[in-house]
Amino acid sequence: SLRRIKASGLKLQLCTNETQATRENFVRKLRAMGFDISVAEVTAPAPAACCLLKERGLRPHLLVHDDLVPEFAEVDKTNPNCVVLGDAAENFTYANLNETFRLLIGMEKPVLISLGKGRYYKETDGLKLDVGAYMKALEYACDIQAEVVGKPSKRFFESALAELGVPPEQAIMIGDDIVNDVGGAQQCGMRALQVRTGKYRPSDENHPGVKPDAYVNNLAEAVDIILQQL
Amino acid sequence: SLRRIKASGLKLQLCTNETQATRENFVRKLRAMGFDISVAEVTAPAPAACCLLKERGLRPHLLVHDDLVPEFAEVDKTNPNCVVLGDAAENFTYANLNETFRLLIGMEKPVLISLGKGRYYKETDGLKLDVGAYMKALEYACDIQAEVVGKPSKRFFESALAELGVPPEQAIMIGDDIVNDVGGAQQCGMRALQVRTGKYRPSDENHPGVKPDAYVNNLAEAVDIILQQL
Repeated sequence: SLRRIKASGLKLQLCTNETQATRENFVRKLRAMGFDISVAEVTAPAPAACCLLKERGLRPHLLVHDDLVPEFAEVDKTNPNCVVLGDAAENFTYANLNETFRLLIGMEKPVLISLGKGRYYKETDGLKLDVGAYMKALEYACDIQAEVVGKPSKRFFESALAELGVPPEQAIMIGDDIVNDVGGAQQCGMRALQVRTGKYRPSDENHPGVKPDAYVNNLAEAVDIILQQL
Repeated sequence: SLRRIKASGLKLQLCTNETQATRENFVRKLRAMGFDISVAEVTAPAPAACCLLKERGLRPHLLVHDDLVPEFAEVDKTNPNCVVLGDAAENFTYANLNETFRLLIGMEKPVLISLGKGRYYKETDGLKLDVGAYMKALEYACDIQAEVVGKPSKRFFESALAELGVPPEQAIMIGDDIVNDVGGAQQCGMRALQVRTGKYRPSDENHPGVKPDAYVNNLAEAVDIILQQL
């Protein structure tokens, strides 16, 4: 399906909320599976956060997965004036959470940047709490609101569109997540298809807040429809 | 001050949100400091939770401090149909949080009972996230609302009043916490004094939601005033 999109001359950008690996490693995995994808074709929360940090002169304390740390190599992390929170997995220890909390509440104006707000996800050994749960814990403890980078934030889709160099009305989002993919893209002015695979649940079709522009059974069918309408 | 209250014939009940120790150990510490207090004179979240569990036929999975576990000795904990969350401190590991989350979201109707909703507290080695932060994380992940046992819940003050055998209008709460002590007691129909010691902050006197019936400089002054008005 990806090959057919590229062959048609359409531009393609992958929007992921992956925060357990650098884009380099993420792309390496996809390429090993046979997908012809380059790093520039991936929009991910960590690089988006780096842009935001630079723009605002913020120096982060990182509570993220070890494998994500290289994304922040160029960022000044001395004397932190904000916290960047990702899905830190095994790094979500009691000690690390308290340390992060103490830094945050000790700031004159606490700034918490969260690389997503997922509630949980599934791994081979079962469900795991996602970054959104820890974000809520820190928000409550510090009485603040986090700034979410990554889907479904409008800013995140805007940066993907900027990479593509197309306005939102000429772009279509294809995704399995009714809120993060479909809702986020639509709020940015894009059309959005929901695939009936992956995270999709039949109950999504009665979602109180989000209605996709269309449903498709899978990615191949989405590509069929898009190419037919060119 | 406690001795003067007791000598006057007034009844006394200590309301604590302590969830890192059994009432027995809590009382032992106070007695070692010279306070003449018995276990029956202490209202604490864990025994209140035990009553609630019994009433509703709930079998808890416990995520609490090791030292609190004996409070639940009499409670059936097989095949859990609810979660009881306390300030588990070092037991707030990534593995324990995920295990608790999986049990909770796997329940037909997830019930989360939280022994308080404090945001943080101070220990000799610095600030620590309190049970409320972890409660928020689980609430968000499971899309549920916890039931809070302990101050400021109305039910908690009612059980203290039941121990005393007096109606709310004949009781006075003395505390340092504007929301948990003063606000909670007032919502239960009691009058409440805030002491200007401990957790008290001058900004409490401009609290948007709670206004004590009076301020006192310390517990001794509170007792003076109460005894004068007898």
